[in-house]
Amino acid sequence: MNHLLSIEELDRPAIERIIAEAARFAEVSERAVKKVPALRGRMILNLFYEASTRTRSSFELAAKRLSADVVNFAPSGSSVEKGESLKDTVLTLSAHKPDAIVIRTPWVGSAELVTRWCSAAIVNAGDGKHEHPTQALLDVYTLRGRLGALDGLSLWIVGDLAHSRVARSNILAFTRMGARVTVAGPPTLIPRDMETLGCEVRHTLDELHDADVVYALRMQQERMTQAWVPSLREYATWYQVNARRLRPRQLLMHPGPVNRGVEISGELVDSPQSLISAQVEAGVAVRMAVLYELLAGASGPASSSLRPARPLRSQRQPDPHPQPA
Amino acid sequence: MNHLLSIEELDRPAIERIIAEAARFAEVSERAVKKVPALRGRMILNLFYEASTRTRSSFELAAKRLSADVVNFAPSGSSVEKGESLKDTVLTLSAHKPDAIVIRTPWVGSAELVTRWCSAAIVNAGDGKHEHPTQALLDVYTLRGRLGALDGLSLWIVGDLAHSRVARSNILAFTRMGARVTVAGPPTLIPRDMETLGCEVRHTLDELHDADVVYALRMQQERMTQAWVPSLREYATWYQVNARRLRPRQLLMHPGPVNRGVEISGELVDSPQSLISAQVEAGVAVRMAVLYELLAGASGPASSSLRPARPLRSQRQPDPHPQPA
Amino acid sequence: MNHLLSIEELDRPAIERIIAEAARFAEVSERAVKKVPALRGRMILNLFYEASTRTRSSFELAAKRLSADVVNFAPSGSSVEKGESLKDTVLTLSAHKPDAIVIRTPWVGSAELVTRWCSAAIVNAGDGKHEHPTQALLDVYTLRGRLGALDGLSLWIVGDLAHSRVARSNILAFTRMGARVTVAGPPTLIPRDMETLGCEVRHTLDELHDADVVYALRMQQERMTQAWVPSLREYATWYQVNARRLRPRQLLMHPGPVNRGVEISGELVDSPQSLISAQVEAGVAVRMAVLYELLAGASGPASSSLRPARPLRSQRQPDPHPQPA
Repeated sequence: MNHLLSIEELDRPAIERIIAEAARFAEVSERAVKKVPALRGRMILNLFYEASTRTRSSFELAAKRLSADVVNFAPSGSSVEKGESLKDTVLTLSAHKPDAIVIRTPWVGSAELVTRWCSAAIVNAGDGKHEHPTQALLDVYTLRGRLGALDGLSLWIVGDLAHSRVARSNILAFTRMGARVTVAGPPTLIPRDMETLGCEVRHTLDELHDADVVYALRMQQERMTQAWVPSLREYATWYQVNARRLRPRQLLMHPGPVNRGVEISGELVDSPQSLISAQVEAGVAVRMAVLYELLAGASGPASSSLRPARPLRSQRQPDPHPQPA
Repeated sequence: MNHLLSIEELDRPAIERIIAEAARFAEVSERAVKKVPALRGRMILNLFYEASTRTRSSFELAAKRLSADVVNFAPSGSSVEKGESLKDTVLTLSAHKPDAIVIRTPWVGSAELVTRWCSAAIVNAGDGKHEHPTQALLDVYTLRGRLGALDGLSLWIVGDLAHSRVARSNILAFTRMGARVTVAGPPTLIPRDMETLGCEVRHTLDELHDADVVYALRMQQERMTQAWVPSLREYATWYQVNARRLRPRQLLMHPGPVNRGVEISGELVDSPQSLISAQVEAGVAVRMAVLYELLAGASGPASSSLRPARPLRSQRQPDPHPQPA
Repeated sequence: MNHLLSIEELDRPAIERIIAEAARFAEVSERAVKKVPALRGRMILNLFYEASTRTRSSFELAAKRLSADVVNFAPSGSSVEKGESLKDTVLTLSAHKPDAIVIRTPWVGSAELVTRWCSAAIVNAGDGKHEHPTQALLDVYTLRGRLGALDGLSLWIVGDLAHSRVARSNILAFTRMGARVTVAGPPTLIPRDMETLGCEVRHTLDELHDADVVYALRMQQERMTQAWVPSLREYATWYQVNARRLRPRQLLMHPGPVNRGVEISGELVDSPQSLISAQVEAGVAVRMAVLYELLAGASGPASSSLRPARPLRSQRQPDPHPQPA
């Protein structure tokens, strides 16, 4: 494996290894000179078919802190307007010989498709409602930093499960790390086969006190026009995570951006129980680890691996954190 | 003080020091290798809620010439579309540990608000009609370069004073540097309390011959729809700075972009009396100075200062202009 | 000559020299560290008034692989909205002291106009339907790499000749390199004076078997609304390059992005006869060569030359491809 396409394909040791790598990279962002030369001269393309302040900038910073060069593509406003297909766009960009392509699209399975069209390492930054693996990895990293091992933890994921790639990736990642996952939301927003992912399903928050961590999902405004819930106010009445429902010992997470007053009450966002800023901060370290795993130590693009079976450790010599010159 | 939020908070020695620093940085842009390593590894975010070719690019170039890394955010087209608030956007970006955030918004006071939400050094690149301090600093720098000290100079600022952050910052900066400032424009476009800023008010250009320097403000097209003036043609008839009104010994300035034929006649823009290109050129040097003052010599973000009382000179060792390696 | 404005102004030795230079730069993109320090500290502005994934990114990568700094301007969404003229935009950007400006606009002759307003080296990346010289250079480079010398080759250019800057530049470049060029398309899409460029004109593809290489032009959707052809389907029936018309020994080229199923059938795009990916790949090497020719060896902007008469070789010392430090 030369790509990061999904949590589905990662087993626990693979997740552990990325988390451990991220922990080593985290201190780079604390330095005055926030750079290591680990990926100097490598070229990383951000190909984002959907707007995203958080994810795109997080990958861009991660790449720059590894001294890689970054080129951003937002195909709206460019040849997408001319009707160019994803395939032709990727073939074009591939001819530019990027070492990695970080891709977000509204289409399920697009990241995997792209691997067939080019030799770059592909990082899935969200493919429709399928997966968003770096979000799940940074969430595991964040919880590890706060609570230690996830084994035996009770995690509730609340909200629109039906349209959330974050939910899907996180259920897989949390259960693989030993946590018990419960999902809760209105019946219209929880797919029927949700249990097959290894979680329990609730349609009320009556037992939310069981959770060690509550993970609220973003309530997409556009769902309203599609009549999945009667109104945002109605949704908030029954499913908002707020001070009345969340006990002081419970932690709160959210993938951002938050709709204050909808899925979370405004005051909880900024409370000490909230891990939301820690999640964003973790994003850069985790994405540095992923890019480093995929690209470092290799003499060309995509010859490293995330598979636990392969002996990557020796490639990691020399020290990825030398003092910058 | 760890930020540059307004001219209001700068006294004359603080302005003098930035101008002097800018003079030292100006020659970097004349070199073949237009870079000094002064801010290598520092991360500067450009967060622009309003489009701006000039200001954004000027800051971007300033940062790059100091070898800092730059990440640009144009929140339209990203999570602003998702309804994310300024606060949440800043909290997110702050978790990425930028050393400085250069911010432009349509909201008065936004730059100061942002200082409460993150530890980065904040540079106000325009907050609604409040202030645009680097514009005023580069204008002082430009005049200094042409005329020497500003003491006793007569400066006229002509046009839409009511909606201009440039006017506000410049009146403050010019008067602090010892100049006499007169503002002139139609009564609908000059606020009633204008004199409290320390300037005189005129409603005609009859005494324009008194000015050493005439500073024309941009006439915003959108003001027309709001009926502040009857028409652009009517405005131009009474307030356009043109060859008939401007005497050869008088200098002309404008913050750009110019509406040729409205606030200035086209031929004056390119005349030897015009300092407009010099102003743009000054922008990079002044912004290098500001970023350097805020970020250099410190081991983390925002621990340097613009206050004159603090002995910054020693921090400036070693030489900020070594030959690049 | 300090700019690259058109193929018109290049003679065969000048084209040969850029091609040879590009061949030396091509291997940089194959390295793990895809960078040479040849243009470190030089500043290149991409000023694109028209959206373009391919061309803009190709220039950006070329600049970064030469270690130059790049600033992108897409004037839509910035001061163009404020009504700023091309001249004022260029004057502003010029005050930032770029070493080169890569410019694409919808206006014939704009690149040349810009040379009057600033001292930077200007690279025309497409000026209306006039010229797109780097496209022609990369096409010559691609053919050279596959077929050796172009002397005596038969090249057919098929499609909308009337609105194509690519066609114009390529007819000039191919004929100067010794090829015979035939253009073919519907009478409404071939200007009457086409032969003056040195090519033959056909209105059917009946003799397409004569070609060694078939170069299909993009069929712009917007031409339909202007009634240049009855419909895309009608166009495809008579002028589509497909497996029925293209013989196995013939090569296929296209400037991209392709309208699959319109000017070329989908299966041909990905066939071994297609040079389309090779063209894109050539783009980076050729643009590195052009930027290097214009900027390297000079102590300031734009003092090098593309003219064959000037002895540039000595300026190219030291080796532009040293191993990166």
